[in-house]
Amino acid sequence: MEVELISVGTELLLGNIVNTNAAYLSEQCALLGLSMFHQSVVGDNEERLAEAIQTALGRSDVVILSGGLGPTKDDLTKEAAAKVMEMPLKEDKHTRKLIAEYFKNSGIKTVTENNWKQAQVPEGGIVVDNDNGTAPGLILEKDGKSVILLPGPPNEMQPMFAKSIFPYLNKLQPEMICSCMVKICGLGESYVETQIADLIEKQTNPTLAPYAKTGEVHLRITAKASDEKEAKKLIKPMVRELRKRFGDYIYSTDEHETLAESVLKLLKERELTLTTAESCTGGMLAARLTDVPGASEVFKQGLVTYSNKAKRKLLDVKKTTLKDYGAVSEKTAKEMAKNGAFVTGSDVCISITGIAGPDGGSEEKPVGLVYMACSLNNKVTVKEYHFQGSREKIREYSVVRALTLLRSCILESDGKES
Amino acid sequence: MEVELISVGTELLLGNIVNTNAAYLSEQCALLGLSMFHQSVVGDNEERLAEAIQTALGRSDVVILSGGLGPTKDDLTKEAAAKVMEMPLKEDKHTRKLIAEYFKNSGIKTVTENNWKQAQVPEGGIVVDNDNGTAPGLILEKDGKSVILLPGPPNEMQPMFAKSIFPYLNKLQPEMICSCMVKICGLGESYVETQIADLIEKQTNPTLAPYAKTGEVHLRITAKASDEKEAKKLIKPMVRELRKRFGDYIYSTDEHETLAESVLKLLKERELTLTTAESCTGGMLAARLTDVPGASEVFKQGLVTYSNKAKRKLLDVKKTTLKDYGAVSEKTAKEMAKNGAFVTGSDVCISITGIAGPDGGSEEKPVGLVYMACSLNNKVTVKEYHFQGSREKIREYSVVRALTLLRSCILESDGKES
Repeated sequence: MEVELISVGTELLLGNIVNTNAAYLSEQCALLGLSMFHQSVVGDNEERLAEAIQTALGRSDVVILSGGLGPTKDDLTKEAAAKVMEMPLKEDKHTRKLIAEYFKNSGIKTVTENNWKQAQVPEGGIVVDNDNGTAPGLILEKDGKSVILLPGPPNEMQPMFAKSIFPYLNKLQPEMICSCMVKICGLGESYVETQIADLIEKQTNPTLAPYAKTGEVHLRITAKASDEKEAKKLIKPMVRELRKRFGDYIYSTDEHETLAESVLKLLKERELTLTTAESCTGGMLAARLTDVPGASEVFKQGLVTYSNKAKRKLLDVKKTTLKDYGAVSEKTAKEMAKNGAFVTGSDVCISITGIAGPDGGSEEKPVGLVYMACSLNNKVTVKEYHFQGSREKIREYSVVRALTLLRSCILESDGKES
Repeated sequence: MEVELISVGTELLLGNIVNTNAAYLSEQCALLGLSMFHQSVVGDNEERLAEAIQTALGRSDVVILSGGLGPTKDDLTKEAAAKVMEMPLKEDKHTRKLIAEYFKNSGIKTVTENNWKQAQVPEGGIVVDNDNGTAPGLILEKDGKSVILLPGPPNEMQPMFAKSIFPYLNKLQPEMICSCMVKICGLGESYVETQIADLIEKQTNPTLAPYAKTGEVHLRITAKASDEKEAKKLIKPMVRELRKRFGDYIYSTDEHETLAESVLKLLKERELTLTTAESCTGGMLAARLTDVPGASEVFKQGLVTYSNKAKRKLLDVKKTTLKDYGAVSEKTAKEMAKNGAFVTGSDVCISITGIAGPDGGSEEKPVGLVYMACSLNNKVTVKEYHFQGSREKIREYSVVRALTLLRSCILESDGKES
């Protein structure tokens, strides 16, 4: 079955935003085993939109459009699709009710008239509720082909795709696709690839594909079978083989579990409480941890000690340490972690201090130099890193490496106790 | 003049990478005043590539392709373009020499045979040297149209575009385009759209287009003229008109300035230091502020008080306040901000406390209820919000609204002083 994507929005043609929706949807379609040969981007123009949909329908079975479903005059995707599919627009009472509820719950009293445009749906189309916004998704079926309309904002589109569109597309398929993501931290991309070269060489069903993420490597195992049970049976031995090869470097085999989530789980199982003490990442590590619902069971507080004064006042880092070794040093990182655990009464404290740039580097301490330390049961482990790239990239790597350090310290302390 | 983009690579169709090249090239073309109505993505398949180039040439003056110029068998962009343009491939001695030099300088002694494929160029094409890799760029001209081939890796493509392709395209253009982004915070998308409906209705040159961001609305003004000065002259009255309509809700007219950046600038100008006191956003606000290089001049520390105990211990929130009103209350938000400024000795403290969900809500205090307070010169302003959507969305909106609150408090205190 062939699928193709049309991303809608003049902001894409102007380069105002990066098309992350296309990457997400492509990955999901690949997971579903759908073939994709074309993607296109069209601006907010009804005529060109209709033409693009027409062309896509001529060569593909499923056409997925994202963007252009909002309340403004520029939002014309639905109008264009309705014309091409010959399904005139009509108000959907259920959607109108949901929109009214959405605004009511948001505490917005005056709903401007243009918002009701979002309740207009092509007659005969399947309405897909939007749990995170006002524009519903739509599935328009005709002559054995489907046109799927999704809202543009990723935080509305992705949950909608996962909840409603993925199962819809899987049902259209003759064979069931199942996959599993084996997530690895603490090993480099090329090392992992070398270690699985033989498995990739002889892959048939299931297949194995590596994906490099910042500071992590994910391996996707995908199997095709007549039903889910059979597909899962094909996946199992491959997971076992990878566990044999990578052991504790595998932090999860759950598609949705993040590294932060897995670390919080380890802490919770051991009934350990956590504090973060950040300098150059300025709260990013705490934010990453609190992305996870229920983090409060483990994570009690975070200290962002951006200035030297704050490091002294909030974390009792010695004045002489800052003077003699500098804020970016092994010694400061150690004191931050050790004192962070002590002053807050936490079992564990992880600290990060470094030079994120673009300024502030020197020959001795260049941009990208980052120290991190983990204090657990009064034992402090410290690491030195030299990251490359932009401020954003250095901060992002620091967060992932800090979580990796935290994880390895917890696992190591298990070994010590047993 | 019309331009269109073709991004080449099966990795894009599989969602393995995000198409940042398209965003970069689109932005550059918009800057050049070129009209772009289409973008497409094609895999590494010669036939489909040739078809895509053919279609693009039928409707555009310039076709820019990126990717597929490397040494492997999968790299077929040049082959497809050469066929469509009827310019047979021939070895270019200059390029062969550059490739040999590149490998020599990289310390690589054995150059595999397939690398010399990169020295093959379409006869009559303009060769564009690659300063950061081995595959040269190419400009193929025929019948008043141009096909431009660029390497896929961004670190090779972008410098090549800036150095050679931008000037080439600028010479082809009769008119210059200029644009300006007016950034608004604290007003809803539909409200803003209603307020500028008349301007959009009668727009010609310059044009006006709204873009909704989380908690913000951006308005792009774009003008075409014979030169930059004339174009800027056309933009000026529109900016003035928008300032008249939206006043202080406009936080920037600088393309690259973020809300966090503009708030830090306001604080810096007034020599005010800032502390953050976060609960439900768990460090996101501090992280957003420290995204900005040089934030340390203003932002000294952040306290992530996730537990009640941390609120008491680090921020001196009264036990009775937490008991009688709860952690998510106006009173707690106020104490967090007021005490946060006091205990850290900062001029300003902004606090956030709320229920980000998915659990933890009640009928009285539902998920999405967020209080935030700003303490400035001992005056505390508090706001109550009811956000909708996922945990992620509630946290993201909280951060943007907190920055907006911070901004309005700073501006208000200016008024008081004068």
